Order: sequence, then C-alpha cells, then structure tokens
Amino acid sequence: MTAQPGRRPQESAAASDPQSDALAPEIERLVRDSFDKQGLMRHLGATMVEVRPGEIRIRMPFKPELTQQHGFFHAGGTSAIADTAGGYAGLTVFPPGSAVLTVEFKLNLIAPAKGEALLAVGRVLKSGRTLTVCQLEVFAEQAQALVPVAVGQQTLICLNESGTKISS
Amino acid sequence: MTAQPGRRPQESAAASDPQSDALAPEIERLVRDSFDKQGLMRHLGATMVEVRPGEIRIRMPFKPELTQQHGFFHAGGTSAIADTAGGYAGLTVFPPGSAVLTVEFKLNLIAPAKGEALLAVGRVLKSGRTLTVCQLEVFAEQAQALVPVAVGQQTLICLNESGTKISS
Amino acid sequence: MTAQPGRRPQESAAASDPQSDALAPEIERLVRDSFDKQGLMRHLGATMVEVRPGEIRIRMPFKPELTQQHGFFHAGGTSAIADTAGGYAGLTVFPPGSAVLTVEFKLNLIAPAKGEALLAVGRVLKSGRTLTVCQLEVFAEQAQALVPVAVGQQTLICLNESGTKISS
Amino acid sequence: MTAQPGRRPQESAAASDPQSDALAPEIERLVRDSFDKQGLMRHLGATMVEVRPGEIRIRMPFKPELTQQHGFFHAGGTSAIADTAGGYAGLTVFPPGSAVLTVEFKLNLIAPAKGEALLAVGRVLKSGRTLTVCQLEVFAEQAQALVPVAVGQQTLICLNESGTKISS
Repeated sequence: MTAQPGRRPQESAAASDPQSDALAPEIERLVRDSFDKQGLMRHLGATMVEVRPGEIRIRMPFKPELTQQHGFFHAGGTSAIADTAGGYAGLTVFPPGSAVLTVEFKLNLIAPAKGEALLAVGRVLKSGRTLTVCQLEVFAEQAQALVPVAVGQQTLICLNESGTKISS
Repeated sequence: MTAQPGRRPQESAAASDPQSDALAPEIERLVRDSFDKQGLMRHLGATMVEVRPGEIRIRMPFKPELTQQHGFFHAGGTSAIADTAGGYAGLTVFPPGSAVLTVEFKLNLIAPAKGEALLAVGRVLKSGRTLTVCQLEVFAEQAQALVPVAVGQQTLICLNESGTKISS
Repeated sequence: MTAQPGRRPQESAAASDPQSDALAPEIERLVRDSFDKQGLMRHLGATMVEVRPGEIRIRMPFKPELTQQHGFFHAGGTSAIADTAGGYAGLTVFPPGSAVLTVEFKLNLIAPAKGEALLAVGRVLKSGRTLTVCQLEVFAEQAQALVPVAVGQQTLICLNESGTKISS
Repeated sequence: MTAQPGRRPQESAAASDPQSDALAPEIERLVRDSFDKQGLMRHLGATMVEVRPGEIRIRMPFKPELTQQHGFFHAGGTSAIADTAGGYAGLTVFPPGSAVLTVEFKLNLIAPAKGEALLAVGRVLKSGRTLTVCQLEVFAEQAQALVPVAVGQQTLICLNESGTKISS
C-alpha cells in the first residue's frame, strides 16, 4: 500500500515532496494582489499571513465589529476567512491565468470563536482540471494556544484563461 | 398520503395553518434585540426586514466594503446573512428563554452575487427539542427581479434557559 | 420583483411552465436504462417510480437487509436513493449525450427512517452548463402518511458527449 | 502556540498520546455487536476491519451488486460505509450506555470509486457532550495502492443511557 489511510491525502503527498513549499513568486504576487482587491477582507481587518503551494492562512484580529450577540466572533466572519483561505489555496495550484470561484462549502462550528484573533487555514485536498476540493480549518488564538473552532470542506471551480465562466 | 412529496415539509405545514404568520410580539422583540447586538451585521450594513414564525429575512445593500476580487458581493457576506437568517428563524420556534447556536451549515453559490442588495431568507424545515434544521436562500436584487444566488442547509442547536451550553 | 423569495427557485419556474411535465420519451428511456444498470439499486430493491423534467422519485420498500442496528432503514440506504434521485433529476435537464457524476452531497437525517418504504425525491434547483444543484428529500411511508426523514443538497457535474471526464 | 495549525486537531492529540490506541475490550465488543446488527452492512458485504479509540475502518470488497451505471462502486455504498465508520468512531468516545445517531453528513466524491475494495475511515475530530464531529475518508484499493475517492464531514448526536432520543 503506497498511501496511508487515515491521513489526509494531500498531507501524505506534501510530506513526500520537500519542494512543495516553494511557490513561484509571480503566483504569490497574483494571489496577494487578488486578495487585496477584496473589499470585504479589508473591511473585516483580515490579512493573508501565509501563502504556500496549496495552502493559505488568513488572520483576523478581534474587534467589536465582528461579533455576534454574545460578543464572540460571528460565524459569518469565520466563514468569510475560511472560504477565502480555501479559494486562494486552490488558486495556487491552478494553471496560470485561471480564476477561482467557490462552488459550495460546508462548515462545522465546533467551539465558541473567542480569542484575540481567528486564523483560517485553507488546504487543497484534491486538485482536478475543473474542480478542486479544499479542507478548511479555523483556529482561535487564546493566550498562547490555537484552539480549533471550525472545520469544513469546500469545492472550487477553476475558470479558464479567457475568463469565461464555465460553471453556469 | 397526507404529505406532499416534492414540497418542503415546512411549506406544506405552513400552508395549512393561517395562524402561522402571527408571531408573539415579545418573541419578535427578543429576536430583534439579539440581532441588534451583532456587531458584524451592523458593520456589514445588514438589517432584519422580516420576522415571522420560523422565517427570517435579512437584507444587505451593496457597498464596496462587501466585495470580492471581481467587485461582486463576497461569499463571506452572503454566508453571514444566510447563517444569521437561519439562526433567528430557529430562535422564533424555540421555547422562551432559549438561545441558539449554529452547529453547521452548507451553502451552494449558484450565481454571481451582483445587484443592489442581497436578501437572505432562513426558514425552519424541521424543529426538534435539541436540533433544528433550516433551509437557507439568498437572492440578489437586480433591477426589479430577485435572482437566486445561493441555497443552503443549516443545523442549529437550542440551548436551555440557564444558558448552559449543551453542545460540548 | 418577479421571483418569490422564500420559495425554491425551481418551484417558481416550474409553476409558470405547464409544459414542464412533458419529458421527451427518449430521455425517459435513457434515464430508466441507466438506472437499470445500477447493480446497487437492484440489490437494495429500489425502483424508479417517477421521471419528470428535473425531478425523479425512487422508492425502496423495507426489508431486513436495509437496516441499521435498531431495525430502521440505515442512513446508507437513505443516502443511496437520495443521491440517485438527484443524479437522474440532473440528467433529465442535461444536453443529449451527456453523462452525470455526483460532485458532492449533504444530507440531514431529521427523523427515524421507519416505515413500509422510503421515497426519495431529487429535484433540480439550478441547472448550469457544467454544474447543477439539486434538492434531495426522503420520506418514510408510515400507514397512509409520508413523513419527511431526510433533506439534502447535491452538486452534479455534466460530462460531455465524448464521455470525457471533465472534473479531474 | 501549543497547537499546530494545518493539522487536524485530533491527529495532533493522537500523536501525543501513545495510550490512545488502547480501547477497552467491552467497548470494542459493544461496537462490533452493534455493527453486526446492521442488516445493510451484511447485505453490502462490508466488515469492520479496525476499531480504535475515535477511529473505525470498514472494508467493502467489490461485487456487481454494488455498482452504478458505469460499473464502478455506487456513491450510495461509499456513503453507507463512510457514515457507518464515522458513527462508530463517535460511539467509541461516548460514555458507556450511550447510543449514536447521525445528524448529518457531507461527502465529496473526488475520484472514480473503482478497485478491488473500498476502505472507509471514520475519525473523531471533536467530541462534545451532545454533538461530535467526524472526518470521513474513503479509499479504493487499486493493485497495491490506496487511492482516495471520497472525503467528508459528519455530525453525530449522543443519546443518553435511558435510550431517550434527545434530538427531536
């Protein structure tokens, strides 16, 4: 058996490829430029803190403008950075000139989202020509620990160079 | 056969109960007061435009602070109002003194979210003692039409009167 | 406003089109022939009881070979007929010569699946060139009533005439 | 920071606890006895090949009774063993006397399910008093390799000792 059941397929692959941390500078620039155009991320105070092949991390510090009725982070903000992290993780593995759209995502909220900041991690699980599946995780920074607050799964579609929308 | 397959169960039920549009004023006040405490909804410019038994509508006008990289509404905003609409739809059918938490939700983004505003509709499909399932829909206001841009499904948990968190 | 928020988009569309019940006989034949090739549906005792444009119903009578540990229908069987109903609902609206694959689905189990039979209804909510989204519902036949036991949402991909798999 | 973002929380925990492989024999017996009562698993030819704390593996060899229209494993069978693996993974971490019900699950089908057998792995990501979230993975055995064919996420509810259904 060449794969290890019980580990995320992408993790196995990544582990066997020491080159996988090297992302072409032009792709990183493209990803960061696109992120900077997202009015919502700026409005929420979210920043892209790590860009790697097939993996993106976005951090969003706490502020009262991000709360739900109990004063914790609102699940809407959690979703926003999780979806964005997954989308750009997909874009890092798409052919040059591609664009990305979220087809759907699902998120389980597993603990109260309270802390100094949230950190969303999007990671490609399976990359295909048309569709790509990502794993989504969100952690809350509490004192010196990262506490998992949400886990999810996302489907992305790769749009071709001409910018033609191929999904509908 | 007393139910109509192929129609949402809750719709059948609602259709047979002309009383179902009458929500106790104290519940509506409780729902609106809770919504007003959500810093994120205010920050996004979202308002609760309709409160009915088992159904909530939230509207969010377009502004540049809500965009993704192509200038449309960001899926994070779409998710935020969809999740909130479903959560409060659930709260309208919970026993007095209850609180609501989202367990998980899933959203399909079926068309570009562009228009003057988004309208999220959350509707209870099945209400249980502990768990409640809602249908989520988001429409874009384009000229005089409402165009469906997202559909989803959400699981809520009802917290008891003492405020004890019973989910974990 | 031309659409009715709070109703499933496809329902609105269907309601305005009295022709929508007429499915070309060759498409119905194609759908039924494909269904008949599914070894699993035969093994489970499931039959396709209705084929309409954008909507398929599959029925599966109770037998001990379909149970979980408490003697009710196993969620695996519920999922199998729900997924199949949605997939063929999609196929009815695809261009001639297309094939269908399930990209993903999500199912909420809202009541114990007990009764004489299960009836799964798959209905197209949004049909696109590449991706199609379906609503899934499963009812249990209990005495003279149909009791909703599961609701879900599904994403399908349309494969082109040459049979080329375009998803990965 | 004590947790490692970008790894599944449960994996981190498991890695740091060499005791975690030891499951009380009475719990293993309870899990296996319950599995053996599932008529569907027997009908599909599925067996429970591994029982560990918070992790269950179920294997289902290929047979024509499990196919979809192209002769591969039907997604319904894939779902059935994935859901079952997750459910029993949850049961291993529940208090003695508990029962388990699936609240909902979501599955992405990421590759054609063809091979000599399918192997489903269910693993607890987050265990709570009422709700538990599991990761689902299904691999196809192809020659000497395990190829990932499906990934998913599942929510379970723990029923209390008296067998009272607390979800609805």
